[in-house]
Amino acid sequence: MAIAEVTVVPLGTKTASLSRYVAQAIKVLQQEKDIKYELTGMGTIIEGDLDRILTVVKKMHEVTFGEGVVRVSTTVRIDDRRDKASSTASKLESVAKHLEH
Amino acid sequence: MAIAEVTVVPLGTKTASLSRYVAQAIKVLQQEKDIKYELTGMGTIIEGDLDRILTVVKKMHEVTFGEGVVRVSTTVRIDDRRDKASSTASKLESVAKHLEH
Amino acid sequence: MAIAEVTVVPLGTKTASLSRYVAQAIKVLQQEKDIKYELTGMGTIIEGDLDRILTVVKKMHEVTFGEGVVRVSTTVRIDDRRDKASSTASKLESVAKHLEH
Amino acid sequence: MAIAEVTVVPLGTKTASLSRYVAQAIKVLQQEKDIKYELTGMGTIIEGDLDRILTVVKKMHEVTFGEGVVRVSTTVRIDDRRDKASSTASKLESVAKHLEH
Repeated sequence: MAIAEVTVVPLGTKTASLSRYVAQAIKVLQQEKDIKYELTGMGTIIEGDLDRILTVVKKMHEVTFGEGVVRVSTTVRIDDRRDKASSTASKLESVAKHLEH
Repeated sequence: MAIAEVTVVPLGTKTASLSRYVAQAIKVLQQEKDIKYELTGMGTIIEGDLDRILTVVKKMHEVTFGEGVVRVSTTVRIDDRRDKASSTASKLESVAKHLEH
Repeated sequence: MAIAEVTVVPLGTKTASLSRYVAQAIKVLQQEKDIKYELTGMGTIIEGDLDRILTVVKKMHEVTFGEGVVRVSTTVRIDDRRDKASSTASKLESVAKHLEH
Repeated sequence: MAIAEVTVVPLGTKTASLSRYVAQAIKVLQQEKDIKYELTGMGTIIEGDLDRILTVVKKMHEVTFGEGVVRVSTTVRIDDRRDKASSTASKLESVAKHLEH
């Protein structure tokens, strides 16, 4: 299980408001059964099997084309730890513990 | 007011666990009065004046050196919108509205 | 054909020097026939079919594990333009034309 | 001395061609005396003092607003190594040495 952050940005859109494109990409995620996701103010955090994550990112990227969008910039940052189970929740807990001391 | 996402990553640390370094950087943020921040599973989202953001990012970067850390990789992604007020909250609301339809 | 930039970073390595890991990932690229790549000071730029790029990035990520490496942070930024053929060369030429004026 | 990669992306532009905006940002760099830079197919690599880099990135970001551009997404990735002198050239040489073996 890996954690990834994805941002899908259409370029050359008529307006600087991109929320409808973000919503399209989130709809792709809503249809995926074994993927956890969380929308933040700067992207979408996805947790799941790495191959599944890459497949889903490809879908989020593809769905953004069309209706006048001819160029899409997609960024994926993968955090893949294999010595122990890792998740957004466990990462936040670890930082919180260090902040208490 | 801009929104930015920051990740500060020390390289060549003895362990693959980096939460103590993240906590150090968060402590820098806790001491800043006019900066809003939120820790996510993949970075820290900061809202504030762009110059203040860059100054704070520099501090988060610097505090990570020391105690054996000689190399730090810091990434900042800035989303700066000037035709209307924007915030993490307003961005999430806009996407939510599109998802309802 | 898309253009992508990939950085594969092992975390928790004994030394802050990561060039041997970069070399491992480049060796993966050298074995791929229909992929163009260029190493820069900050990552590797890859040109090719998007599915091929994602497959190759996965290989570069996987090869970095092992020999004590248990955590890898991989970032891929994809620039995918579909209204006309695009390449690193054509992008640099366009900027150069604007600089002349 | 640090190495950084910068990408400045205007959102909501009339066309998906962004080379004129990249050229504007490069012109900012051309006027800076103590900064080395190199344009790649995916961004601009800058070498120099970290404070100078951040100041220049701010200028590149600001120059992109105007003429209808109301939203700019700027990403900076900093590689800062302090146990020895590092540069784009030395990093590429180190990888090349590992590839020879």
